[in-house]
Amino acid sequence: MIRFENDYTEGAHERILQRLWDTNYEQTPGYGTDEHCEKARAYIRKACDREDIDVHFLVGGTQTNMTVIASILRPYQGAVSATTGHIAVHETGAIEATGHKVLTLPSDDGKIRAEQVRELYDAHWNDATHEHIVQPGLVYISHPTENGTTYTKAELEALSKVCRECGLPLFMDGARLGYGLAAKGNDLSLADIARLCDVFYIGGTKVGALFGEAVVITNDALKKDFRYMIKQRGGLLAKGRLLGIQFETLFENGLYGELSRHAVEMAMMIREAFVQKGFSLRYDSTTNQQFPILPDEVLTELGKTYSFSFWEKIDDNHSAVRFCTSWATKKENVEKLIEDIRAL
Amino acid sequence: MIRFENDYTEGAHERILQRLWDTNYEQTPGYGTDEHCEKARAYIRKACDREDIDVHFLVGGTQTNMTVIASILRPYQGAVSATTGHIAVHETGAIEATGHKVLTLPSDDGKIRAEQVRELYDAHWNDATHEHIVQPGLVYISHPTENGTTYTKAELEALSKVCRECGLPLFMDGARLGYGLAAKGNDLSLADIARLCDVFYIGGTKVGALFGEAVVITNDALKKDFRYMIKQRGGLLAKGRLLGIQFETLFENGLYGELSRHAVEMAMMIREAFVQKGFSLRYDSTTNQQFPILPDEVLTELGKTYSFSFWEKIDDNHSAVRFCTSWATKKENVEKLIEDIRAL
Amino acid sequence: MIRFENDYTEGAHERILQRLWDTNYEQTPGYGTDEHCEKARAYIRKACDREDIDVHFLVGGTQTNMTVIASILRPYQGAVSATTGHIAVHETGAIEATGHKVLTLPSDDGKIRAEQVRELYDAHWNDATHEHIVQPGLVYISHPTENGTTYTKAELEALSKVCRECGLPLFMDGARLGYGLAAKGNDLSLADIARLCDVFYIGGTKVGALFGEAVVITNDALKKDFRYMIKQRGGLLAKGRLLGIQFETLFENGLYGELSRHAVEMAMMIREAFVQKGFSLRYDSTTNQQFPILPDEVLTELGKTYSFSFWEKIDDNHSAVRFCTSWATKKENVEKLIEDIRAL
Amino acid sequence: MIRFENDYTEGAHERILQRLWDTNYEQTPGYGTDEHCEKARAYIRKACDREDIDVHFLVGGTQTNMTVIASILRPYQGAVSATTGHIAVHETGAIEATGHKVLTLPSDDGKIRAEQVRELYDAHWNDATHEHIVQPGLVYISHPTENGTTYTKAELEALSKVCRECGLPLFMDGARLGYGLAAKGNDLSLADIARLCDVFYIGGTKVGALFGEAVVITNDALKKDFRYMIKQRGGLLAKGRLLGIQFETLFENGLYGELSRHAVEMAMMIREAFVQKGFSLRYDSTTNQQFPILPDEVLTELGKTYSFSFWEKIDDNHSAVRFCTSWATKKENVEKLIEDIRAL
Repeated sequence: MIRFENDYTEGAHERILQRLWDTNYEQTPGYGTDEHCEKARAYIRKACDREDIDVHFLVGGTQTNMTVIASILRPYQGAVSATTGHIAVHETGAIEATGHKVLTLPSDDGKIRAEQVRELYDAHWNDATHEHIVQPGLVYISHPTENGTTYTKAELEALSKVCRECGLPLFMDGARLGYGLAAKGNDLSLADIARLCDVFYIGGTKVGALFGEAVVITNDALKKDFRYMIKQRGGLLAKGRLLGIQFETLFENGLYGELSRHAVEMAMMIREAFVQKGFSLRYDSTTNQQFPILPDEVLTELGKTYSFSFWEKIDDNHSAVRFCTSWATKKENVEKLIEDIRAL
Repeated sequence: MIRFENDYTEGAHERILQRLWDTNYEQTPGYGTDEHCEKARAYIRKACDREDIDVHFLVGGTQTNMTVIASILRPYQGAVSATTGHIAVHETGAIEATGHKVLTLPSDDGKIRAEQVRELYDAHWNDATHEHIVQPGLVYISHPTENGTTYTKAELEALSKVCRECGLPLFMDGARLGYGLAAKGNDLSLADIARLCDVFYIGGTKVGALFGEAVVITNDALKKDFRYMIKQRGGLLAKGRLLGIQFETLFENGLYGELSRHAVEMAMMIREAFVQKGFSLRYDSTTNQQFPILPDEVLTELGKTYSFSFWEKIDDNHSAVRFCTSWATKKENVEKLIEDIRAL
Repeated sequence: MIRFENDYTEGAHERILQRLWDTNYEQTPGYGTDEHCEKARAYIRKACDREDIDVHFLVGGTQTNMTVIASILRPYQGAVSATTGHIAVHETGAIEATGHKVLTLPSDDGKIRAEQVRELYDAHWNDATHEHIVQPGLVYISHPTENGTTYTKAELEALSKVCRECGLPLFMDGARLGYGLAAKGNDLSLADIARLCDVFYIGGTKVGALFGEAVVITNDALKKDFRYMIKQRGGLLAKGRLLGIQFETLFENGLYGELSRHAVEMAMMIREAFVQKGFSLRYDSTTNQQFPILPDEVLTELGKTYSFSFWEKIDDNHSAVRFCTSWATKKENVEKLIEDIRAL
Repeated sequence: MIRFENDYTEGAHERILQRLWDTNYEQTPGYGTDEHCEKARAYIRKACDREDIDVHFLVGGTQTNMTVIASILRPYQGAVSATTGHIAVHETGAIEATGHKVLTLPSDDGKIRAEQVRELYDAHWNDATHEHIVQPGLVYISHPTENGTTYTKAELEALSKVCRECGLPLFMDGARLGYGLAAKGNDLSLADIARLCDVFYIGGTKVGALFGEAVVITNDALKKDFRYMIKQRGGLLAKGRLLGIQFETLFENGLYGELSRHAVEMAMMIREAFVQKGFSLRYDSTTNQQFPILPDEVLTELGKTYSFSFWEKIDDNHSAVRFCTSWATKKENVEKLIEDIRAL
């Protein structure tokens, strides 16, 4: 079985494992105060072209989302998100468990638009009984989205502008950020993201690391005491150096970008094969997740050799499914898949 | 600087790193449903001499404590703990953040006694207005304690008996469990612990792993839906296999016990050296943490070569400090320390 | 200005005020343990034709909803509700503040149907990764709904059946329960409701009392320790007798039904007047809230003499508004309104 | 049985009941936006000699404590309180249910001292791993305390000074504030309290009202969006006017002070009788709660005619008990009690 079902099926890039070996007997202080974490922070600041940002390392995405969001909101505020946002649907109510509602905006492609945020904001404050309603307190976006789509620079600038006008911090879930930066046609740099978002994270788990998410806080008002939040939510890794070592490796020589580009290239080959064969795509994804709409017999046929994820039923005989590539995807496996698609 | 300041200063035992290399390109499903996790569970069941237990893998101690405790308590219940318990003092209110009070019992050595639990329980239910008071809902103990002390089998049996009489699940924080099992004079086996506790965990972070805690649930009533709890609290590692691989390695051939015994042996040598030199000990610890009471000039002298932790001021010229060994402690370093103690 | 904007604009029925006078210097124990509360409980048990129910008195609706829901759900569970449910939109995230998501089902009239609950339940448990998703834990309905509509006995029986099949307690928010019982065509008795719901409440605030909601718990599994929950959520009134006295008055001689019938009769007269004048209604309400769709000029005209609530914009020139009657509505005011409608 | 067991055994002062009658058919908007609330606010501002304060009305003490505290603290902060503080012992973990730890300071008389706060604050910030520990976020005091004692102006000024130096808002629970203002030897005015505290409340429930607590926020930084907090925590009374009417009545002509003085006078008579008879007092209370230490045979004897509360066992034959007076205490009952004490 060749697996395209998600982007966390393998371990980590070998350079990371090698670095873990090499540093194994170093004795370092705990909780992210070691030199590897410091170096990784320096590399990330450089990649963001900003010295005045705080960088923290957490273990996983849900943990990061709940920690960041709980650190920003007042008790009666909620996080604005697309209906499809990870925090809205796939985190077992982790945000609600911190006391906050997720305020959803309809979205077909996973993105939300500046106008939607403005409308929600205005609707709230124009309501005569607004104190009976959860107040919007921040805007959460994922980039790339859960559907593989990405924001353009113009879109992100518009969102950022509205958010700042409304006093709503903009938080980008970058669990797959590398794949967004490597997307075909992407015009957003890390520096742009750091400029336009108040806080975001650079996903490691799905982009070459064993685990780890690097939270970047650019808004001074959100920096204070964030380590208390990490500790309270169970995210302050005792051997914090493990996170430092991984991000150090990913960012010292451009490995993060390299791995991301590979995954996107593989995904584009798969996309092309499906399109050429005449299948349509559920979303116009330019990143490492592809969502072809396939008839049942094709699903059965491909399912003999490949694992992929069911996404949604389209009609009686068709479903959208997800093929995921990653930093670890082998080109030979993609080529075999393409051959099999052509042979359908 | 030779570090004795804690038991998480190094990476992991080499067999674990090797196993990570060897399995790196295996493609496995996520979230702890892979074969490595299954194998690790089987080994742990065997070590506990019980087939009917649930085993889950989480990343760190605070995360584990808050997840287990929040899964057990009703909203108006609290966790009974020694005043010195980790959940009471060193987790930034993680338990309170899940909505629950920590009900503390006085303790000088870090342990609580069966009679204390019974008294607290009776006091609660004998109070005419008990619904105005947080109801005791479970008993939390650490073994070894934060002070290096351990429960004897008789003590744990007494605690367990009272807990069952009172309907209070007994939860053992085993972040350093290996060192307790390896303690001089220990008469508790893993099977005893599984029999006497309703839920406990086997710490990996401090005993040879990069990270990881194996939660063992023995009480059927506490098993249901625990994976939802892990996910909600941010503890469901995407590449769950990393936890499986580590515990598989630690438990397939007795490595866990071996590493633990080494650390305790090193600690006992240090203890002996201090005692022979005439220093007293703050706690009668038989495990990997030792707490000598030392005059200021000795602290200054030893501090030139060794790092260790300040524990508490004893009088104007003396402080208790903590020397910590671990699976990674080098015998040569211990011998050098002993020599330096003798030479004081 | 004659107010039809809501059903809590006046104080309380005079018999209640009189009873407060008469009992003012009685010395009673606090927190709902007095004889008035006991009597009120007895009357309510009789009205429900059930001796084996627990009755508790709380102060207001949001407080009651959050207390009941938090007492039932496990941490990873959510409350299923219509999108229009009070807990979903008008309680400032009170449910989320207790850690729980509100899982919404689409509804145009404010009601949810048995099939919707079954579908949600099946969808959850059929999802391979269901532990990543909030688990449905109870079903919340309001009766009458926020739109003035009511459940028929057949509908409530169907809902109750599905809920029991799925192990989901059914919770009825009866903030306006009296008006539902008095609705034209209503075929549900209090005994039916007690039989079909696991917990519900009988609203006093909007039906003749100064304040107060009587929670009835019929499901034995939900009864334990409920007073702890009330206290913890701030709902255990020191002078609990005030609640007892009010419900005693409302239930000893049928006053509750009498007041409810009056309000519904007044509402039906208003409805009839709008319909006869050719206006349509946003919802087919048979209770004390009526939602005519009116052109802007009519709104302006009526707004000179009457206060009512804006509900929603229908098109460029029409809006739905809400006219609310209550136990305190004066017939002469309704007649004047009807006259003015006719004269439009 | 003549009851001295607490200060909420009767209803309300007759002027309040009369006012409820008189205003019963007024039609007012809900949720505290009516004219009675506005008038009550104006009276309270005048009593505090400050125009720039926000005044909100809530129903009860636990509700008020949890709402105020949750509105102030960041998620990782705790409320500093005496070990005997109401929030620490008698609110079923209501504060913890909002996610916050209560950080207790030892106290024998119910008061905490400025130096204790300073020490706790310094200890926190001097700890190298302070992010592992709950950060002090506000200071909670009760005045009078649960033991009937009161702060002098000098003590409150010292506390306030330290709190401001440490950036810790000072919150006074004034559930019995009237009795403190009326205490023998009291040198604190409402204006002093408004000047020295960041937020406090004026208790109505125990001082002549049916229920109700008036929260006064003097610190601008704590004013924003407080109504959202009240609504979310279930404290926004639909018929908010009931609170306005009560505080209007209590404050328009000095009734609050008058009732308070009566209760304290009655308490002082009881105190004097016990002292003259040679009994000692558990606390030096100058307010409406008195705590004589009595031998068992006296308890039995007095218990035949009077109800009072058990406080604590002092030795094998003696217990401290609580006699409570209130605005409603009848002088003839006090005189009878005194006679019976003398006759012992």
